[in-house]
Amino acid sequence: MMRAGPSQEEIRRHNLGVLLRHVHLGGPTSRAELTTRMGLNRSTIMALTADLTAAGLVREELPRVTGRAGRPSLVVRPESARVYVLAFDIGVDRLVAARVGLGGVILDRREAARERGAFDLPEVAGRLAAFTGEMLAATRGDTLCVGVGVSFSGGVRGADGVVRFSPNMGVSDLPLGPELARRLGLDIPVAVGNDANLGALAEQSRGVGVGTRDLVYLHGDVGIGGGVIVDGRLLGGHGGYGGEVGHMVVNAGGRPCPCGARGCLEAEVGERALLEAAGRFGRQVGRDAVRAVVDAAGRGDFVAQEALARVGDWLGIGVASLVNIFNPEVVVFGGTLREIFLGAAAQVRSRITTDALPAAREGLRLRTPALGEDATLAGAAELAFAQVLADPLDALARVGG
Amino acid sequence: MMRAGPSQEEIRRHNLGVLLRHVHLGGPTSRAELTTRMGLNRSTIMALTADLTAAGLVREELPRVTGRAGRPSLVVRPESARVYVLAFDIGVDRLVAARVGLGGVILDRREAARERGAFDLPEVAGRLAAFTGEMLAATRGDTLCVGVGVSFSGGVRGADGVVRFSPNMGVSDLPLGPELARRLGLDIPVAVGNDANLGALAEQSRGVGVGTRDLVYLHGDVGIGGGVIVDGRLLGGHGGYGGEVGHMVVNAGGRPCPCGARGCLEAEVGERALLEAAGRFGRQVGRDAVRAVVDAAGRGDFVAQEALARVGDWLGIGVASLVNIFNPEVVVFGGTLREIFLGAAAQVRSRITTDALPAAREGLRLRTPALGEDATLAGAAELAFAQVLADPLDALARVGG
Repeated sequence: MMRAGPSQEEIRRHNLGVLLRHVHLGGPTSRAELTTRMGLNRSTIMALTADLTAAGLVREELPRVTGRAGRPSLVVRPESARVYVLAFDIGVDRLVAARVGLGGVILDRREAARERGAFDLPEVAGRLAAFTGEMLAATRGDTLCVGVGVSFSGGVRGADGVVRFSPNMGVSDLPLGPELARRLGLDIPVAVGNDANLGALAEQSRGVGVGTRDLVYLHGDVGIGGGVIVDGRLLGGHGGYGGEVGHMVVNAGGRPCPCGARGCLEAEVGERALLEAAGRFGRQVGRDAVRAVVDAAGRGDFVAQEALARVGDWLGIGVASLVNIFNPEVVVFGGTLREIFLGAAAQVRSRITTDALPAAREGLRLRTPALGEDATLAGAAELAFAQVLADPLDALARVGG
Repeated sequence: MMRAGPSQEEIRRHNLGVLLRHVHLGGPTSRAELTTRMGLNRSTIMALTADLTAAGLVREELPRVTGRAGRPSLVVRPESARVYVLAFDIGVDRLVAARVGLGGVILDRREAARERGAFDLPEVAGRLAAFTGEMLAATRGDTLCVGVGVSFSGGVRGADGVVRFSPNMGVSDLPLGPELARRLGLDIPVAVGNDANLGALAEQSRGVGVGTRDLVYLHGDVGIGGGVIVDGRLLGGHGGYGGEVGHMVVNAGGRPCPCGARGCLEAEVGERALLEAAGRFGRQVGRDAVRAVVDAAGRGDFVAQEALARVGDWLGIGVASLVNIFNPEVVVFGGTLREIFLGAAAQVRSRITTDALPAAREGLRLRTPALGEDATLAGAAELAFAQVLADPLDALARVGG
């Protein structure tokens, strides 16, 4: 706000990033289209494209089909097969590793189930490094890794990738980023983000939130995470721990929460609340257990119906509060909340009607993730691409591209 | 994000606004200081200052005192006596009108008590227009009004200044901006904002939040309003109705709220909750009534102490949730919440310790407004100055300056 305008060189670097982001998020785009969308003239677009082509980030091709007469505008495509990131998703019940090409294409992907219980950092980092080794062994020689991103269910210090707290993983001050960087041995910094924050970013960039500037993403795992986009940008807060909507108190004095408080949204809506209400706690865990309750309710099981209605009501109360606080355009129910929302949509909607201000809920859409179970993984990939999209040439210089 | 860089002329206009904002918020500033702060060279600063001087927005003077040898750098001052805005604060219990000079100086101010009951728009607009007439009659001939801003306790549609909802004023779809513009007859658009949003802006620009980028401002009147600054910018939401933290449900099934829900923060912490708990509802109203309970508690009145502790506990629960959601650097307790916070700080702090995540409350400061009861009025003035600070020459052209 208080800084002066940028220099010509800053503008050029900014524009290189903007152009690259266009083809990264929008796919192959004609020069003519880029000219229109970026509000720059043709020769500037040509120069920017030439720079990005020389750097090996995009290439230009004739379009496959052209409906118009005359000389067709060249199409700029991201070099998806050559330029990629490593994305990791560390959930309570699963580990996922993927190689994701520029443009968001999943080039390779490995997944393993994870046992609950004490979080063993060396073991997890070792398994992810082993997956990475397998994936890298399968790549061609001229490929370039431009970043590493990790999604984790907890509060993360962005500066160094340390997980400050994660009641559900049972860890605090876990040096996840540094340890993973050491095990990977790729000499590329490892960026770590909160799973729900990354889910929010992914759904806004390439999911149900494309084109929206105000979005709340709720992620159910064991607990409830939140990621909030305010006016197009991820809510971070002073230390980067904002968006913990799962620890909003909805029922003061209610069920105990792993965080130490009582009646948090997570305590009333999380996996344990649902399974206990359904009389199923201690049997099965995770998404399968949640799905089993929702399925049983759908088949007419009265106990399961009551449990789902109860949890759906608390979810609706929490979402109504978030609607009043954020006046979002879209609320996305991800992870296990997808199943719960689909099973209890009537309760959720009814509570929003009762408890949210009419103006705050105008135009509100309730959605499940377009990216499905890979929303957080896709967010980890976007986190890894952030540097190269902010300043492509500088980022390449740093990773030796 | 997806737009290309600005043109030279856009940069110049931006820089004019940045320089004007520096002296508006920071007071008289030397050219040398502006050069450093804006990161521009001396000749650019001279040219920008010359433009703003020619427009009558600033003037340059020799500094009064100089500790250094050599030729002193000229000081740039806002033309506070010449360039001003009209600011109005429409509260439940009072009406305030002020003439506020560039730089934030209150040049003239009128205030009247307001009776509660049906909101009579023609009467309120008439009284504010009469105050304005008195103030304008007392101005010199070469002054220039560059904007009109209004603070109102309700949800406001920014585009046209219509109050969409205000359960506590008992109005909806009230054409406040247009009616006031008509009555003032100044041919200047009237910008209307939510009181707590404006309080947040004012405290961040010139109050306890200077230098902070993440701030939550809570305003107690009859109800509880909220204004949230996220990464330096006011949280608006999709339709501009965001920040209604008073309608976050903290006690599901609890006390009825004028909004139609139950257990909202406002229902548990608002004026009526406190007065009922203290056995004083129906006697006195407003700030004096709240102050009387806090004073009685301080003198050892057991019923008042219990009432204050109860309300303070709910306030603490609500603030703890907001800390988890926003990870703010500062929470400001304005309006009647100032008294309640000062009387129940121990409860509030204790709840935050119990219910907020340690990482989210790191470095958190709880404060009362530096601008006191004029926080919302000061915010209305800032709203009125927004155009001239965004693009000084364009704004002057529009108001005929």
